[in-house]
Amino acid sequence: MKLEAETTDLAGLLSSNKKELDSLVLDFLPKIHRNREISSLYEMMRDYPARGGKGVRGSMCLLWCRLFGGKREDSLLTAAALELFQNWILIHDDIEDESDLRRGMPALHKKYGTSTSINAGDALHGKMWELLLSNKAILGPELSIRILSEFCRMLNETTEGQQMELSWTTHSKWDIREQDYLLMVTKKAAWYTCISPSRLGVMLSSLRREHANDKRLMEQLIELGTDLGVAFQIMDDVLNLTADPKKYGKEILGDLYEGKRTLMLIHMLERCSSREKKRVTAILSKPRPKKLHTEILAVLDLMGEHGSIEYAKATAKNYSQKALSKYDTLTSQYGLSDSRESQTIRLLMEYLTSRDY
Amino acid sequence: MKLEAETTDLAGLLSSNKKELDSLVLDFLPKIHRNREISSLYEMMRDYPARGGKGVRGSMCLLWCRLFGGKREDSLLTAAALELFQNWILIHDDIEDESDLRRGMPALHKKYGTSTSINAGDALHGKMWELLLSNKAILGPELSIRILSEFCRMLNETTEGQQMELSWTTHSKWDIREQDYLLMVTKKAAWYTCISPSRLGVMLSSLRREHANDKRLMEQLIELGTDLGVAFQIMDDVLNLTADPKKYGKEILGDLYEGKRTLMLIHMLERCSSREKKRVTAILSKPRPKKLHTEILAVLDLMGEHGSIEYAKATAKNYSQKALSKYDTLTSQYGLSDSRESQTIRLLMEYLTSRDY
Repeated sequence: MKLEAETTDLAGLLSSNKKELDSLVLDFLPKIHRNREISSLYEMMRDYPARGGKGVRGSMCLLWCRLFGGKREDSLLTAAALELFQNWILIHDDIEDESDLRRGMPALHKKYGTSTSINAGDALHGKMWELLLSNKAILGPELSIRILSEFCRMLNETTEGQQMELSWTTHSKWDIREQDYLLMVTKKAAWYTCISPSRLGVMLSSLRREHANDKRLMEQLIELGTDLGVAFQIMDDVLNLTADPKKYGKEILGDLYEGKRTLMLIHMLERCSSREKKRVTAILSKPRPKKLHTEILAVLDLMGEHGSIEYAKATAKNYSQKALSKYDTLTSQYGLSDSRESQTIRLLMEYLTSRDY
Repeated sequence: MKLEAETTDLAGLLSSNKKELDSLVLDFLPKIHRNREISSLYEMMRDYPARGGKGVRGSMCLLWCRLFGGKREDSLLTAAALELFQNWILIHDDIEDESDLRRGMPALHKKYGTSTSINAGDALHGKMWELLLSNKAILGPELSIRILSEFCRMLNETTEGQQMELSWTTHSKWDIREQDYLLMVTKKAAWYTCISPSRLGVMLSSLRREHANDKRLMEQLIELGTDLGVAFQIMDDVLNLTADPKKYGKEILGDLYEGKRTLMLIHMLERCSSREKKRVTAILSKPRPKKLHTEILAVLDLMGEHGSIEYAKATAKNYSQKALSKYDTLTSQYGLSDSRESQTIRLLMEYLTSRDY
């Protein structure tokens, strides 16, 4: 019972944070221009930010700032910029991955065409830096620049991870080692979902309180966020195969239709016979519309046979526990274990790696 | 004779500036990563910056900084970031416009595929901000943030101009008023080619010398740069129809194959018969591979008949003269008319609007 109440509290907190950050973003973005074409650009830029989502990254930043004694209002703009980051990069991601849907609606390029959507992504990207520059009035120029640098790092990591994943698809590469998969996921997902949100939150708190061992702390947050982000992404991929379609917002088995290299797939390909391997990679290499549902189910069955889904769940659990244990060490090291924010972040970490939709 | 010698000096200056800025950019960009896929991302990011170009935008920034008493070394990073801006945005532009060639070689997405090229453009975009953040060590945080804000403005304007042009193509719009064309060109070309390079140069000089009437000066540079940029873009489009193929780096008549809305085309469509208009727009609306060379030549002939190319040249000349006169007023107002930099900028302005390749 207690866990359920806590989860509801967490859900309420996430949703109220998200609401506040969304309205901050939408107030900041331009609305209308006397020129019709430019107005339609503005409409495109506002599209994904108006579609919602969980707001995990923004909330993470707000919570880590509070945990270390920072003020919520100091971190709002940066948390909103994190949400903006996700929105512009998803516009480009959806084009790169040829995704048709985003949050239950047609992807931006399906609504407006690819060319203008690439451009709208760039325009929204620009607005992210502009929003971050407005930090100066609250944080001063020095800290504002530190925040900007963290966004640069985050973007470097994310584009490197994206390149890894795209290259595997483009070059039909199936022999992927688990360690390459982990590097890809760390770069593509962990940095912008976990590592940078926590680092940014702590940086923002430094406006109110000096942290004893700043550099070491920043390193610890990379280690912690890597474990958490890897666990999060593996579970995200597992859910794509196992979630209840009524609760799940995306297309069940969509990753198999996309030929996405997941931990389950890598595990299965390493264990199945060479005949099976040939068949699976032939199916997954087909263009999406040519994939038969029965073929996709056969791949899923093979994963079951080889215990690949169980393996992925166990791996995620392992990373999640490593992350929680690092978190407990870190909070006790800074004497923050008993604070309410500390409990909430812990709950959020558990939720990220054990949610069922 | 004198003009020729001066032009050679200018060409030498542009090329030596470009060389310095290119090596700054290429030294800054990452080279190699132990992961093969990430190394190939780095290779893609270094591709356009290694292809050369005239480096007009970077030189413009260096010269305006010197003109107002700034030091060359204060403006090098920012001038290099302007070149980086052009490089990443051209990667995306070439995808959006479906261009096959860039500086005589296959466009990036023709070499590496569209998906990874969109991502490489984003990665290079991130590096532009990172380079600008390294300004802090030389310029201090306050001025660095002003420079970053100007880049945000420049990106807003450029993406708005790009959206206008892309929308006209996507929606097969041919009834374009000259004033809409001018707004598009101002946003898409004048801002990043003329306005921001000059404003950035002057901002950078403020590190060494206070400018009496800064805000008014910044406004004047918008007006001057608009006239110059419009003249530059019109002449750029004229050259696409009239240049000597031996000197011209791009595909002659390529704009007609692309169906690009140019001043010549708008002028001609306003003057030809409705039967001719129907035929021209039918030809230009066809997908590129379906356009016959004879059809393209027929459109070109019609432009000749209606004096549209002459009209465009006269319009460019008019804007160019307005720009030069604004420049003379501005330099005399600040007592800078006799300086060597002042002469060089004037030559560069003349070159930009009267070059024959």
